[in-house]
Amino acid sequence: MAAEKSWVRLVTAQTPTNIAVIKYWGKRDETLILPINDSLSVTLDPNHLCTTTTVAVSPAFHQDRMWLNGKEISLAGDRFQNCLREIRKRANDVEEEEKGIKIAKKDWENLHVHIASYNNFPTAAGLASSAAGLACLVFSLAKLMNLKEDQAQLSAIARQGSGSACRSLHGGFVKWIMGNNDDGSDSFAVQVTDEKHWDDLVILIAVVSSRQKETSSTSGMRESVETSLLLKHRAQEIVPKRMIQMEEAIKNKDFPSFARLACADSNQFHATCLDTTPPIFYMNDTSHKIISIVEKWNRAETTPQVAYTFDAGPNAVLIARDRKTASLLLRRMLFHFPPGADVDLNSYVLGDKSILQDAGIKDMEDVKSLPSPPEIKDVNSNQKYAGDVSYFICTRPGQGPIVLSDESQALLNPETGLPK
Amino acid sequence: MAAEKSWVRLVTAQTPTNIAVIKYWGKRDETLILPINDSLSVTLDPNHLCTTTTVAVSPAFHQDRMWLNGKEISLAGDRFQNCLREIRKRANDVEEEEKGIKIAKKDWENLHVHIASYNNFPTAAGLASSAAGLACLVFSLAKLMNLKEDQAQLSAIARQGSGSACRSLHGGFVKWIMGNNDDGSDSFAVQVTDEKHWDDLVILIAVVSSRQKETSSTSGMRESVETSLLLKHRAQEIVPKRMIQMEEAIKNKDFPSFARLACADSNQFHATCLDTTPPIFYMNDTSHKIISIVEKWNRAETTPQVAYTFDAGPNAVLIARDRKTASLLLRRMLFHFPPGADVDLNSYVLGDKSILQDAGIKDMEDVKSLPSPPEIKDVNSNQKYAGDVSYFICTRPGQGPIVLSDESQALLNPETGLPK
Repeated sequence: MAAEKSWVRLVTAQTPTNIAVIKYWGKRDETLILPINDSLSVTLDPNHLCTTTTVAVSPAFHQDRMWLNGKEISLAGDRFQNCLREIRKRANDVEEEEKGIKIAKKDWENLHVHIASYNNFPTAAGLASSAAGLACLVFSLAKLMNLKEDQAQLSAIARQGSGSACRSLHGGFVKWIMGNNDDGSDSFAVQVTDEKHWDDLVILIAVVSSRQKETSSTSGMRESVETSLLLKHRAQEIVPKRMIQMEEAIKNKDFPSFARLACADSNQFHATCLDTTPPIFYMNDTSHKIISIVEKWNRAETTPQVAYTFDAGPNAVLIARDRKTASLLLRRMLFHFPPGADVDLNSYVLGDKSILQDAGIKDMEDVKSLPSPPEIKDVNSNQKYAGDVSYFICTRPGQGPIVLSDESQALLNPETGLPK
Repeated sequence: MAAEKSWVRLVTAQTPTNIAVIKYWGKRDETLILPINDSLSVTLDPNHLCTTTTVAVSPAFHQDRMWLNGKEISLAGDRFQNCLREIRKRANDVEEEEKGIKIAKKDWENLHVHIASYNNFPTAAGLASSAAGLACLVFSLAKLMNLKEDQAQLSAIARQGSGSACRSLHGGFVKWIMGNNDDGSDSFAVQVTDEKHWDDLVILIAVVSSRQKETSSTSGMRESVETSLLLKHRAQEIVPKRMIQMEEAIKNKDFPSFARLACADSNQFHATCLDTTPPIFYMNDTSHKIISIVEKWNRAETTPQVAYTFDAGPNAVLIARDRKTASLLLRRMLFHFPPGADVDLNSYVLGDKSILQDAGIKDMEDVKSLPSPPEIKDVNSNQKYAGDVSYFICTRPGQGPIVLSDESQALLNPETGLPK
């Protein structure tokens, strides 16, 4: 170990979040986080939704510490400890001559780390912040400790922090292979196609207002595995076939098949939640309305325009076949779900705001004068629900984790290793 | 046939509605209405929910005619025609000496009938009015035409009008055996136990306000059969086991098992609706809240107090283990769902209103001062939703169809055969 205690080694990385289109619901091993079926996700553009994490090591640190969004949090939980242990085990020699840093493989067990993490989106909004967060923790620590493992091997470590985190180790479309081994060694994520393969897709997320306290996905999936007779059938008989069909649809950029599978699989996941004792409701009336609007539009067209998928909460993730469709989708969404009083357009449509221009919407007057969508025939389906959506985020499929080499983007001070 | 054209023969009958605790969802034959699984229901007390039907025959009638709730409706639909045809086929000689009526078996094919039907509850409220209605049509026509068939055989005729109608031919707990024959001859309803066997049970129906137009159960179950992969598994693998367990629970008056099975089966039926393409949502946020309240209370007690079940709509049917429990349930319901403005208590709790006394509630002041239920610990679960329930009906398990011999209760004029 370097004799001087003055140095701090920093690595900063950025990792995307992801949304499953074939859902992960249910573990066969709670400790190792091994799933009961394969799953498949699209990685979201980190420009709009990502976690940035800086990890630091210094002989001056006396304990492992972590800060999330500026606030110190405990690292005592199993999820963090499992990841830290697995990464330390695989650490290698590190040498940075200009800083006088020299760490031998065996030194790592005595060195402590500081971790600072920041989400560029609301943590509690049900947008898979734990997936991006754990993936970023693993990816940045792996760089810090000079691991030789590839992304798939790192994904198997991230999996032990948060199941869906393993899918955030890659960009584009990503498959989490459930594996068969009891030790989890063959349960990891691989890329199906990169984000450039199908770059027509545009993703609109509706963050739905909710007063209900939701069941955590950890306890929810445990209860489903224990009590839902339908979940077992889904995992064993239905998902294996759907995985093959979904990979095929993605490789062929076959949007109608992609949309049908994504919608059916989201609905089936929520069906197994409802089949749980006691039943779990993640979607609410607003979620149902969004589905009805999309279904009605898709049926009015000759071929599906938009796919929807919902995770363990009421938020809708809407995937439009192209940018033109996305702008028509946004017009429909703003027609039915205008912002509530005192909410301005600029804070109502986030992410890639240029979609507003494509949709021909400059201000609230344009929102108010939006015509009823042509597929709506009866007055009953014409209703507006101001305030039922908190905000929209427009994004697209995006890249996997990257190291940010510009030290100005670090969340920890390079001298002290404490939050800036 | 009697030479004079002056006579009118009348029969008036009353038939209950029923609510399934093991659900019927999906037909294997659309024309004969043959189901994909057995189902089991409780018949509701006709004093609170029933259809009354008067049928009349006279040589003076020139065509078959029908009035529902005072308004003439068409009899052209397959459902009516199937029942009429099947009953006429089985008609027998009738003789009423004092009225000078003599109808030979062969005369029936040339005689026309008048039918007047009346529901003592709102037709469109999603309270199985078609089940009671078709059952009453079949039962009263069978009496008019002197059929020799027993209730099970009549139920097979009613089944061809509306599947669940077959279960309204008996009181108490009733099983609809799906049968195996292609001609439907072995698909009929039998009584499991009569209504006196388990007379502790009290049933509280919450009629839930809804702006959504619902998918009809006929088209809904067709779409589920065509698209839900989970429904097939439910019908083939899960329901057969549950039927045996449910019959056992009813025979033993084992409320905990009864409640667990009823709740799980209601939730699973709605899960298969959600697994349908496009998905069908019958329950709404209010339905979900009612489930949460009951589930929380059941968990707080050592054993289930109340079972819930929902048909193809948002209304909750709550089955309390006894009258004391029902009064505690009503207090909880009125705490969370007080009547909306301008609704008085007398039009908010219908059916057996004496439950209000048991619950210690005389007026709106008592409703306002109801304490928060003891099982509620966090403020979030303490919310009130005035107006989300339209009204409650308190009832109990009840008897099967009866003939009303008092002619003053007839809905048709005994001289003219036209509505009174």
